[in-house]
Amino acid sequence: MEIKEKNRRSRLLDNVCFNADGFICVVAQDHLTKTILMVAWMNREALDQTLETGNVVYYSRSRKALWRKGETSGQTQELIDMRIDCDRDAILLDVLQKGVACHTGRKSCFSWAPGSDGAWEPVEPVETDPDVLYRGDQ
Amino acid sequence: MEIKEKNRRSRLLDNVCFNADGFICVVAQDHLTKTILMVAWMNREALDQTLETGNVVYYSRSRKALWRKGETSGQTQELIDMRIDCDRDAILLDVLQKGVACHTGRKSCFSWAPGSDGAWEPVEPVETDPDVLYRGDQ
Repeated sequence: MEIKEKNRRSRLLDNVCFNADGFICVVAQDHLTKTILMVAWMNREALDQTLETGNVVYYSRSRKALWRKGETSGQTQELIDMRIDCDRDAILLDVLQKGVACHTGRKSCFSWAPGSDGAWEPVEPVETDPDVLYRGDQ
Repeated sequence: MEIKEKNRRSRLLDNVCFNADGFICVVAQDHLTKTILMVAWMNREALDQTLETGNVVYYSRSRKALWRKGETSGQTQELIDMRIDCDRDAILLDVLQKGVACHTGRKSCFSWAPGSDGAWEPVEPVETDPDVLYRGDQ
């Protein structure tokens, strides 16, 4: 069964269009509220580990390393379901977010709106003091 | 008022982190259902025109041209609201989608799920015959 499951994942991964740098764009949506939590990137290994473990693993392009979401902050994302788009170059995750997704302590990273004076203004509350979240996790 | 509005847009655009190629990743979410419709890209001009006109304009990286969503297919996206993320390198659009977002005739481009045999399987219905949609619009 384990080999069969590995082969299944391998086939899925073979049919994903990673870009020239080996990455695919990933959108995470909250299972309960349908809120969009964040956009990040995965490489093949990150997507494989996400499928295997059921916990979301991204690839940090700045740190050039796998990014096990919430590994240090505790703000994990449990994978409920997954969709790929018509071009197979973007993935949508349906996740259960533990705590907050954003390193600023907000539920979603998409928390700034165009203000009347042309500034981007925060429009969502800080739910968790960001000092208590390990900043390196974002 | 027109100059003031142009200055407002200019300030918003100055504070967006376009990537080295001049693009930003954009997620479109359906205003009514919260369904994620698609992921695409904008350059500065596309984002400016979207803010100015209230109709979503992307940038087609394959065609190297502005992509006025629905211009030929009629499947336009009316901008309701917009958010930017904590890194200012991804944008979330709240839109009213006319008809379907996907060139396959499905409401959302994210319509394929991992199958038990490792194939990506369509899990959403075709709502509009894709032959009646101008294929070049996607």
